[in-house]
Amino acid sequence: MNINELDTPVVVIDLDKVEANIKKLQVYLDKYGIANRPHIKTHKIPEIARMQLKAGAKGITCQKLGEAEVMADAGIDDILITYNIMGNAKLQRLTQLASRIKLRVTADSEFTVRGLSDACSAAGVETGVMVEFESGTQRCGVQTPAEAAALARLIVALPGLRFDGLMTYPTTEKTGPFVKETRTLLAADNISIPRVSGGGTPRMWEAHTWKEATEHRAGTYVYGDRRTVAYGAMTYEEVAMRVITTVVSRPTPDRGILDGGSKTFSSDLSGLEGHGYMLEYPDATIYAQSEEHGHVDFSRCRNQPQIGERVTVIPNHTCVVSNLFNQVVGVRGNTVELIWPVSARGAVQ
Amino acid sequence: MNINELDTPVVVIDLDKVEANIKKLQVYLDKYGIANRPHIKTHKIPEIARMQLKAGAKGITCQKLGEAEVMADAGIDDILITYNIMGNAKLQRLTQLASRIKLRVTADSEFTVRGLSDACSAAGVETGVMVEFESGTQRCGVQTPAEAAALARLIVALPGLRFDGLMTYPTTEKTGPFVKETRTLLAADNISIPRVSGGGTPRMWEAHTWKEATEHRAGTYVYGDRRTVAYGAMTYEEVAMRVITTVVSRPTPDRGILDGGSKTFSSDLSGLEGHGYMLEYPDATIYAQSEEHGHVDFSRCRNQPQIGERVTVIPNHTCVVSNLFNQVVGVRGNTVELIWPVSARGAVQ
Repeated sequence: MNINELDTPVVVIDLDKVEANIKKLQVYLDKYGIANRPHIKTHKIPEIARMQLKAGAKGITCQKLGEAEVMADAGIDDILITYNIMGNAKLQRLTQLASRIKLRVTADSEFTVRGLSDACSAAGVETGVMVEFESGTQRCGVQTPAEAAALARLIVALPGLRFDGLMTYPTTEKTGPFVKETRTLLAADNISIPRVSGGGTPRMWEAHTWKEATEHRAGTYVYGDRRTVAYGAMTYEEVAMRVITTVVSRPTPDRGILDGGSKTFSSDLSGLEGHGYMLEYPDATIYAQSEEHGHVDFSRCRNQPQIGERVTVIPNHTCVVSNLFNQVVGVRGNTVELIWPVSARGAVQ
Repeated sequence: MNINELDTPVVVIDLDKVEANIKKLQVYLDKYGIANRPHIKTHKIPEIARMQLKAGAKGITCQKLGEAEVMADAGIDDILITYNIMGNAKLQRLTQLASRIKLRVTADSEFTVRGLSDACSAAGVETGVMVEFESGTQRCGVQTPAEAAALARLIVALPGLRFDGLMTYPTTEKTGPFVKETRTLLAADNISIPRVSGGGTPRMWEAHTWKEATEHRAGTYVYGDRRTVAYGAMTYEEVAMRVITTVVSRPTPDRGILDGGSKTFSSDLSGLEGHGYMLEYPDATIYAQSEEHGHVDFSRCRNQPQIGERVTVIPNHTCVVSNLFNQVVGVRGNTVELIWPVSARGAVQ
């Protein structure tokens, strides 16, 4: 089937580009001896996770326990969940998962660590725990090396847990000094830090400059998006995800309406102007969205589309687009090769 | 099961409130003789659509052909799709749908109308077509009464179509004058306007003041959200959708992190500050989101939550939250009564 026969809106994934993106980052990280542990939140597709592993990734990263279960069911056996997992329901599921794959999680509080220990020791399993620390994103993470060291000591002391190192997101200039200071504090207790996991796509090509990070978690790199291009980490030619839409209305000379809106692209502006980059009309601006309509200003375009014309959009943020579609279409050039269900979509818990 | 036993994040729907919301709008529209045609894009759940019909709605509104197919499969036989439907694949599905239910669609261009006519006449079915016109939202819709009249004449003239009136979104002060002028133009051709369909939740209680609109399409009213409350159309006590989340991290004295972010609430700010209203901590602000984390500022709260505590969020925009979850949980008070799959979720085409 030709790509032009697909009904719209549809997410197409250029398989050649996905393969090239996977290979490029792997080669780079291999060159510098950095372990590659891609984050599957971007694609949520076991088949792509397996491509990443086959290329040399040491394991994968998930953000939700439910995502990890889907990936484990698909045969993937080395998973890091970069999340504070808590509550009886999730802890029970976690111990079941830990009994069948190599599982690591992260924690930034005594509450999380004690919950993990109680559940794992009761179930007779061991789970690796990494201490999450703050590197500037102001999300989760302990704030000081002293807190990191205290939490590492607790993990070492409690049953059912294995201290697996430190984790942060994204890796920044603050990462190295934080790790060094934590290492010094833990050396007094003869506790070594087995690995330091950093992450992020925008600055992935700087990973070799952060000497303390031994592992890198990138997610978006596999597809790329407008934000990644704006940051300079990828080119539009490398971006593998596109959303094909149709111009369903031209109510005024300058305005065009697409059959995709916030339920197609999400509302993530990601700091950019407009809601995507239109390949056929690079001077057009998707200046607003309704749920099922994209509102486009074509006034700066020399040629303007007709009603019924198909236009191709590179979204601002690819991860949230994956999360809106039940399936994506894999293509090579203009030929449809496969359809992948977004299997871990909706695994919200 | 008690609501407190549900794992998080989870969308709960207060069934008493849904029933009250459905009844309240129905009673109001009945009082003024306005046909009620609720928009199911908010809930995407056939069971709720049936509740709306049972209460007195004349039919339902869908935004996507795929949504209408799901609703028709569930036995709903009177559907308006407020969208320009085009392209061979969709037009073929449309004629199949028109052969089994009472179907109406909208159009704002000759291109759309001719496509509908060609498909319907070839398939030997008749589809009702309403002309969509601009009432100030600057999305789709013809811009002038002259354009509306010309399109109505074309619909009347072409085979396979039935001219079913005018449609706009949302109803505003511009609606009445536009309709009157179009009616005058069409009277010369002995074409009457069988109905005028307006819509919107924020100004639904003004529907009786727009004399020309004979039908009202509201979607959000069934659940309500922070935006609807901000507009004054509903109170927080009436809002039926809540998202229960857990505080998974308290990295600093003022910051808390929830286990729900842009993949839970969407990024729709809807003109409001912050990403939701927290029932237990009304002075807290969800000032930022990552995909799976909500970043909360608790500095203005006298009491602050502990890690592991559950907090309840009323989202800014309920329709886009429904679109992120595979299922919602129906409750009465604190008792879980049922689980509804969001059946029309993902019906993107």
